[in-house]
Amino acid sequence: MRILILNGPNLNMLGKRQPEIYGTRSFTDYYNELQEQFTGLDYFQSNHEGDLIDRLHAASNQYEGVVFNPGGFAHTSVALADAIRSIGVPVVEVHLTNIHARENYRQHSYTAAASRGVVSGFGLEGYRMAVRFLTENTIR
Amino acid sequence: MRILILNGPNLNMLGKRQPEIYGTRSFTDYYNELQEQFTGLDYFQSNHEGDLIDRLHAASNQYEGVVFNPGGFAHTSVALADAIRSIGVPVVEVHLTNIHARENYRQHSYTAAASRGVVSGFGLEGYRMAVRFLTENTIR
Amino acid sequence: MRILILNGPNLNMLGKRQPEIYGTRSFTDYYNELQEQFTGLDYFQSNHEGDLIDRLHAASNQYEGVVFNPGGFAHTSVALADAIRSIGVPVVEVHLTNIHARENYRQHSYTAAASRGVVSGFGLEGYRMAVRFLTENTIR
Amino acid sequence: MRILILNGPNLNMLGKRQPEIYGTRSFTDYYNELQEQFTGLDYFQSNHEGDLIDRLHAASNQYEGVVFNPGGFAHTSVALADAIRSIGVPVVEVHLTNIHARENYRQHSYTAAASRGVVSGFGLEGYRMAVRFLTENTIR
Amino acid sequence: MRILILNGPNLNMLGKRQPEIYGTRSFTDYYNELQEQFTGLDYFQSNHEGDLIDRLHAASNQYEGVVFNPGGFAHTSVALADAIRSIGVPVVEVHLTNIHARENYRQHSYTAAASRGVVSGFGLEGYRMAVRFLTENTIR
Amino acid sequence: MRILILNGPNLNMLGKRQPEIYGTRSFTDYYNELQEQFTGLDYFQSNHEGDLIDRLHAASNQYEGVVFNPGGFAHTSVALADAIRSIGVPVVEVHLTNIHARENYRQHSYTAAASRGVVSGFGLEGYRMAVRFLTENTIR
Amino acid sequence: MRILILNGPNLNMLGKRQPEIYGTRSFTDYYNELQEQFTGLDYFQSNHEGDLIDRLHAASNQYEGVVFNPGGFAHTSVALADAIRSIGVPVVEVHLTNIHARENYRQHSYTAAASRGVVSGFGLEGYRMAVRFLTENTIR
Amino acid sequence: MRILILNGPNLNMLGKRQPEIYGTRSFTDYYNELQEQFTGLDYFQSNHEGDLIDRLHAASNQYEGVVFNPGGFAHTSVALADAIRSIGVPVVEVHLTNIHARENYRQHSYTAAASRGVVSGFGLEGYRMAVRFLTENTIR
Amino acid sequence: MRILILNGPNLNMLGKRQPEIYGTRSFTDYYNELQEQFTGLDYFQSNHEGDLIDRLHAASNQYEGVVFNPGGFAHTSVALADAIRSIGVPVVEVHLTNIHARENYRQHSYTAAASRGVVSGFGLEGYRMAVRFLTENTIR
Amino acid sequence: MRILILNGPNLNMLGKRQPEIYGTRSFTDYYNELQEQFTGLDYFQSNHEGDLIDRLHAASNQYEGVVFNPGGFAHTSVALADAIRSIGVPVVEVHLTNIHARENYRQHSYTAAASRGVVSGFGLEGYRMAVRFLTENTIR
Amino acid sequence: MRILILNGPNLNMLGKRQPEIYGTRSFTDYYNELQEQFTGLDYFQSNHEGDLIDRLHAASNQYEGVVFNPGGFAHTSVALADAIRSIGVPVVEVHLTNIHARENYRQHSYTAAASRGVVSGFGLEGYRMAVRFLTENTIR
Amino acid sequence: MRILILNGPNLNMLGKRQPEIYGTRSFTDYYNELQEQFTGLDYFQSNHEGDLIDRLHAASNQYEGVVFNPGGFAHTSVALADAIRSIGVPVVEVHLTNIHARENYRQHSYTAAASRGVVSGFGLEGYRMAVRFLTENTIR
Repeated sequence: MRILILNGPNLNMLGKRQPEIYGTRSFTDYYNELQEQFTGLDYFQSNHEGDLIDRLHAASNQYEGVVFNPGGFAHTSVALADAIRSIGVPVVEVHLTNIHARENYRQHSYTAAASRGVVSGFGLEGYRMAVRFLTENTIR
Repeated sequence: MRILILNGPNLNMLGKRQPEIYGTRSFTDYYNELQEQFTGLDYFQSNHEGDLIDRLHAASNQYEGVVFNPGGFAHTSVALADAIRSIGVPVVEVHLTNIHARENYRQHSYTAAASRGVVSGFGLEGYRMAVRFLTENTIR
Repeated sequence: MRILILNGPNLNMLGKRQPEIYGTRSFTDYYNELQEQFTGLDYFQSNHEGDLIDRLHAASNQYEGVVFNPGGFAHTSVALADAIRSIGVPVVEVHLTNIHARENYRQHSYTAAASRGVVSGFGLEGYRMAVRFLTENTIR
Repeated sequence: MRILILNGPNLNMLGKRQPEIYGTRSFTDYYNELQEQFTGLDYFQSNHEGDLIDRLHAASNQYEGVVFNPGGFAHTSVALADAIRSIGVPVVEVHLTNIHARENYRQHSYTAAASRGVVSGFGLEGYRMAVRFLTENTIR
Repeated sequence: MRILILNGPNLNMLGKRQPEIYGTRSFTDYYNELQEQFTGLDYFQSNHEGDLIDRLHAASNQYEGVVFNPGGFAHTSVALADAIRSIGVPVVEVHLTNIHARENYRQHSYTAAASRGVVSGFGLEGYRMAVRFLTENTIR
Repeated sequence: MRILILNGPNLNMLGKRQPEIYGTRSFTDYYNELQEQFTGLDYFQSNHEGDLIDRLHAASNQYEGVVFNPGGFAHTSVALADAIRSIGVPVVEVHLTNIHARENYRQHSYTAAASRGVVSGFGLEGYRMAVRFLTENTIR
Repeated sequence: MRILILNGPNLNMLGKRQPEIYGTRSFTDYYNELQEQFTGLDYFQSNHEGDLIDRLHAASNQYEGVVFNPGGFAHTSVALADAIRSIGVPVVEVHLTNIHARENYRQHSYTAAASRGVVSGFGLEGYRMAVRFLTENTIR
Repeated sequence: MRILILNGPNLNMLGKRQPEIYGTRSFTDYYNELQEQFTGLDYFQSNHEGDLIDRLHAASNQYEGVVFNPGGFAHTSVALADAIRSIGVPVVEVHLTNIHARENYRQHSYTAAASRGVVSGFGLEGYRMAVRFLTENTIR
Repeated sequence: MRILILNGPNLNMLGKRQPEIYGTRSFTDYYNELQEQFTGLDYFQSNHEGDLIDRLHAASNQYEGVVFNPGGFAHTSVALADAIRSIGVPVVEVHLTNIHARENYRQHSYTAAASRGVVSGFGLEGYRMAVRFLTENTIR
Repeated sequence: MRILILNGPNLNMLGKRQPEIYGTRSFTDYYNELQEQFTGLDYFQSNHEGDLIDRLHAASNQYEGVVFNPGGFAHTSVALADAIRSIGVPVVEVHLTNIHARENYRQHSYTAAASRGVVSGFGLEGYRMAVRFLTENTIR
Repeated sequence: MRILILNGPNLNMLGKRQPEIYGTRSFTDYYNELQEQFTGLDYFQSNHEGDLIDRLHAASNQYEGVVFNPGGFAHTSVALADAIRSIGVPVVEVHLTNIHARENYRQHSYTAAASRGVVSGFGLEGYRMAVRFLTENTIR
Repeated sequence: MRILILNGPNLNMLGKRQPEIYGTRSFTDYYNELQEQFTGLDYFQSNHEGDLIDRLHAASNQYEGVVFNPGGFAHTSVALADAIRSIGVPVVEVHLTNIHARENYRQHSYTAAASRGVVSGFGLEGYRMAVRFLTENTIR
C-alpha cells in the first residue's frame, strides 16, 4: 500500500520555525522514523499552492491514501479543497498544533471540509496516527 | 496505564441514531473490541452535562488520560471546557464525523480549544487513534 | 395512541413565573383539561437537560408522538436537537409566547430545526393544537 | 364568525410548485375540505404585496380573524408587518414547511413578529390548526 | 411650482394605525391644511410598490419636486431607490417617527440614500418642512 | 421556439436612467434589433413584483425559456425566486451592469440562485447572449 | 422664545472645509441671515465634546429648544446622547449632508436616537427647517 | 435574614483549578470566614444546570437574597436566566475574574441580564461585597 | 488611605437625569454620606474626556485607589482605557445601572477591561462597595 | 482577433472532477469544438496563481480579449484581481456552475469585480458566450 | 519648513506607561534628539480631543506638515478624522506599536484613512521617519 | 549590511498599472536611485506566492533585514505571514498606497501582523523609509 505524505508551506522550516509553538525536530528526522515503521511512504513538500494541487491530481493514480498538512493554505485555499474533491483517493488532514486553540482565522479549514478526517494538535505524532488509519482501515 | 473513555449525549443511541451519518455499530460492541487491544480502559456515558463535569473532576486522580467525545456539548458548553482546563490529565477530543464538513454550528468546539488535540471524522476508529496516542506517548 | 407531553426548564413555575408574559394558569391545571379531551397522554417536566434527553430516547418505544416545549434549551442545546433527530417519533415543538416577537436570542431554535413543526405564540392552547395535529394526522 | 384565509405569492402554484417540498395537493382542493368543517371562511390569494396590504386593511371591519401565509414576503416585507400592526384583528401566520429547518433567510419573519402566533411545518394541516385556534378561542 | 406628495404603504391608515406611535390625525385632514398654505400640491398614496415606482417615473415631467414617505418600503426596496435615482426631480424623504430611535431594521433606508435629504421624527409637520424646502430653495 | 424577455422595475426608463451607468439606448430600440435576429420573442416589463410573478407562472405553458432582468428585485425578493423555482421553464438572469463591481447590496441575488445561469455586466448585449444560449442549447 | 443653535466639531471650518461636500458659505454668514428672520437665537460652537455636554446641561434652564449639529460626534458619542436625554428641552439634530448617502459609519447616529427629530441633507437650510419646527410647533 | 450562596460548575475545584487565574484558596475555606461575619448563610454548589435551576426555584420561599456565581453557565444558559426571572428574590451575580478582560465569549452573560447587579473581578471578596449589599440594603 | 472618586459625563445631572432609570438622589448628597463613613476621599467630576485622563494620570502619585464611573465614555473611549493601564493605581469601575440588562452598546466597556474589577447595577451603593473593597483589601 | 482562454486550478481535471457537478466532458474536447468555430484562440491552464498572473500581464500585448475561469482563485485572490486591473485588455469571467446557487464562499468573486462581465452557470457553453461577446463587440 | 508634531492621549506618560509595550524613553527626551537633526519643529501634546482638533485647524496656516500620533483616538474619533480632512496640510500618522499586531479594535483607524500615510510599529523612530518624509518630499 | 527588497504580485507592472492609483514610475527606475544611496541591496520580484515564501526562508542566512511589499497577498496569505514568523530576520512591510483609505478588504493585512512595522501610503518613498529604518537602527 502506497501513501503520500504531502506537506504545505513552511513545513520545510520545522525545527527552526517558532520552536515554542512547533517544536525543535525537523520533519526529515521524523520521517526517517516513520519509514522504519511503514513501507510504501512517499514524501513531498512545497511552498507553492500550485505544486500541491498538481501533486494531489497526480496522486489519483499512484497512491491509496494521502496524509496532507496544508499549513496556512488550509485556511485560505478553495482551490486546494477543490483539488482534494477532484481525486478519488482518501485524504487525511494533519495539523501539528490544535487549530481550535489558536487564532480565529486558523479555526476554519477549507481543506478539512473536503477531507476524510482531521488530526489536530498531536505534533508530529499526528502523521503516524493518519498513516495508521489509512493502512489499517484499508486492509480491513 | 488507566484511560477513561467519556461519551456525551446521544452516544448511547449509536447504531440506532441517524445511521446514514453515524453508522450502525453500537459503542458497546466497539468498546469490547477496544478492550481486547488495550488494558486499563474505563467507560462512562451520560446525557447529563453535570455528570460529565463530575467525571472529569474525578478523573484527575484516577486516570492518566481521557478520551472524550462531548457530542453536541462540544459546541455549546463553556462549563465542560472549563472542567477540562481544571484538571491535570490530558484530554483528547474525538468526533465520529468530520465536524469541519457539517453545519456551521458544529465547526466550533469550546471543549476542543481546551483539549490536547482533536480527532475528527474517522468514525469509531477515532477512539482507537486517541487511546493509542495517549498510551504510546506517555510511555515515551 | 400514546403521546408524551414533555416540558423543559421553568415550566414547573408556570402561573407564578412572569405572569405578564406567561399567564397565571399552572400547567397542571391545563393538563387536567387536556386529559378530558384526549386519552393516552403522559406528562413529564424537568429542569435537567439530561433528563429530557433520556426521556426522548425512551419515547422511541413508548409513544407515537411527542409534544415538546424545550423552554430556554430550545435556543442553546445542540444535544437536545440531536436527541430529537436520534429517535423515530415525530416531535412537535410548542412555545407559549411568539418567539419571533421576543429577544433576538429567542428567535433561533436548534430543537425546532430538528422537529416536525412548531406552534408558537398561542399560550397553553398551543399544546392542544400540537396534540390534535399528532392524533388526527396519524389516524389518516 | 368570519375568518379570512390570506395566501401570498406562489401559493396559487401549490401542487405544481416543487412538490418534493410543498406536496402535490392544490390549495383549492384543501380549501373545499376546510369549508365542510368550518363556516364563515373567505379566501384570497395574491402575488402582489400591495393587494395583500389592502386586504389586511379591509379585513379590519369584515373579519374576526385572519389566517395568513405570506410566503416569501414574510422574510422581506416591513410594509406587510406594519399592515398587520395597523389593524385590530388577530392574525395567525401559517407556513407549510418548517421555516426553522430551511435556508437561513427563511428563518426570520417580519410578519411573524407582528402576528399573534405562528404555525410552521405541518403542511396544509397548519391552516386547520390556525382556523381552529381562532374559532375556539374567540368563543371562550 | 408643482410638488407631488407621495405616500407609501399603510399611510392610508394614519389616525387609526398604532396611534400611540403615529398619532390620531388622518393624512387627508392634514393635507387640507397644507393646501391652504401651498398651491400646486398633488397627493397620491398606494400600498403597491409598483404604483409608487410608476408615479415617480411620471413625476419627471410633471413636478419640480417630490415629498416621499416610503413607509416600510424605505427599508427593503432597492427598486424604489433606483426609481428615485432614475428621475431628474429632487426627492425629499419624510418619516413621521424618528427612524434613528426605532427598531434596527428601520434605521437603514435604501430610498433615503437616493434622496436629496431626509426629515424624520416631526410627525405630520415633516411634510410641511419638506414642501417648504422645495418651494423656497427652488425660488432662490 | 418561444422565449419571454421579462424586465423588472426601472428598465422602462433605460436610456433616460443614470446614463453614465446604464447607457443611453432604450430597451425598445434594442428589442427591435433583437427581433430581427430571433423569432418567437415576447416582451413584458413591469415595475410591479406581483405582475412579474404572475407572468412567470403563466410562462410555464407558453414559453420554452425566460430571459429575466429582475432589476432591483433581484436583491430583495424571495417571492420572485420562489416563483422561478415553481415553474418548469429555464430562466436566465441578465444584469446590464456587473453586479460584482457595484454596491454590496447588489452583489447578492435571490433570483440568480434560483435561475439556470447569470449573465452580468455586458450591457444590452447580455440579452442576446441569454437568448442565444436558450435557443442554441435547446436545439442541441 | 429662545433657541440655542449648537454646532459640534469642525463646523467652525465651514466654507473652508471640503467645500465640494460642505459648500463654501461660512456658518457665521448664514447665522446673520437666520437672525434677521428669527429673534431669540443663541449660537455656540465647540470642538470639545465636554463643552457641548456642559452647554446642553445648561440649556435646560435657558432655552425652549436646541438645534444641534453634533458633527462627527453623532456617530461615536454615547455621552452626548445621554446628555440630550438628561435635559428637558427638545433637541432637533441637523446634518448638512445626507448621512444616509455617505460612509457606513455616518449612517448611525447615537445622538439622533436621543433627539426629537432629524433633518439631514439640506445644507445650511436644515438649520432654518429645525428652528421653524421648534418655533411654530411650540406656539401651537 | 437568610441568604443562599449558589455556586455553579467547576467552583468545587477552586484552589486546584488554574490557580494562576482563579487563585489557590478553596471556597470552603473562604466560606468559613464569611460565616464568622454573617449569619443566615446557606451554601450549595453543583455542576448540574438542572440542580441550580431547582435550587433557584426553591429559593423563592426560603431566602431573602441569592448570591450566584453561575460559572461558565453565565455565558450559555437561557434557562438559568429564565429561572432567575421566575422567582421573586433578588439575585446578585458574582464572578471571581473580571469577565470584561477575558475571552470574548465570557463578556456576555445571560444570567447577569436577569440579575439585580453584578460584581466581577474581585476574587473571593466579590462574595462578601454581594452578601453585604443584600443584607445592608434590605435593612434600610 | 486616599481614594479618588472620579465621575464621568452626565453624572453631575444625577437626580435630575432620567430619574426612572438613575434615581432621584444627587451624587453630592450621597457623597456627604460616604464621607461620614470613610476618610481620605476626594471627588472629581467632569464631562470632558481629557480632564478625566489628566486626573487619572495625576492620581498615580496621589491616591492608593480610584473608584471610576466613566458613564458613556466606558463604551467608546480607548483613550481612557489606555489611561487606566498607564497608571499604577488600582481602578474599580462602577455603573449605577446593570449594564448587562441595557442596550447592546452599553454591554461592552473598554475601561472595564482595563480595570481591576467592576460593580454594576447597585445604584449609588456601588460606590460604597468599591470604596470598601479598596480600603479593606489594601489593609489586609 | 486573438483571444486567450485562461483556465485556473482544477480545470485540467474537468470530466474526471466531481462529474455530478462539473459534467463529464474534458476541456480539451470542448476546446477543439470551439476552435472549429473561432480562429485566433489560444489556451493556457495552470494550477499556479503566479502563472496566471504572469499570463495576464503578458496578455496585454498579445490579445484583444481574455476569457478567464479563475476556478477557486476567484473567491480568494486579491492579487489576480489586481492583475486584471493592471492590464488594458477586457477580461470576461466564466464559471461552469451558477456560483449564486452554491456555497456562500463561492458567491463572492474578487476577480469578477475587476472584470468586464461575468457568465455563470451555463457549463462549457459559457466559454462560447464569452468568446462571442468579445469578438462581436470589438468588431462593432 | 515648519512641522508640527502632535501627540494625543497618554503619550505624556511615555516611558512610564506599560514600558513592556511602549518602552522606557520619554517623548521629551526623544524630541530633544529630533530637534538636533531637524529645525522648524514644534511639539504639542494633549489628552483632550478638542484641543487636538483646534490645533489641527490652526496648523493650516502655520505648518507645511503635521506628524500626528492620535493614540487611542485613532480608533474612535470621526471628529479628528474630519479635522484632518478639513485642513490643507499633509498629515502623517505615527503609531509606536504595530497596530496590525494588536487587539482587533486597534487595527482600524479613522484618522489613518484621512491621512497621507501611516508609519506603525517602529517605536519612537517612527517620528523621525515621518518628519523626514515631509521635509525631503516637500523639497523635491 | 545586506537588505533584501522583496516585491509581490503586480509590482512588476508598476508605472503601467492603474497609474492614477500607483503612479507612473517603474520600480526598476526607482531602485536604481535607491542603489545610489544604499549599498548592500538586493531585489527580487515574483507573482508567485511560493517563490516569495522560498525567498523569505532563504533570507534567514543572507540578509539582516527584508523590505517586503506583499501586494495583494498581504490581505489573503496566512502562509506568507507564517513564513515571516519562521525566520529570524526583521521584515518591514511597505504599501505604496494608504491601505487604511482603500477598500475594506485591503485594510487587514496578515503579513503586517507578522512584521516588525508597516509603512503605508508614501508611494515609492516608503521603500527608502523602510531601508533607512533597517540600516540606521541596526547600527545603533
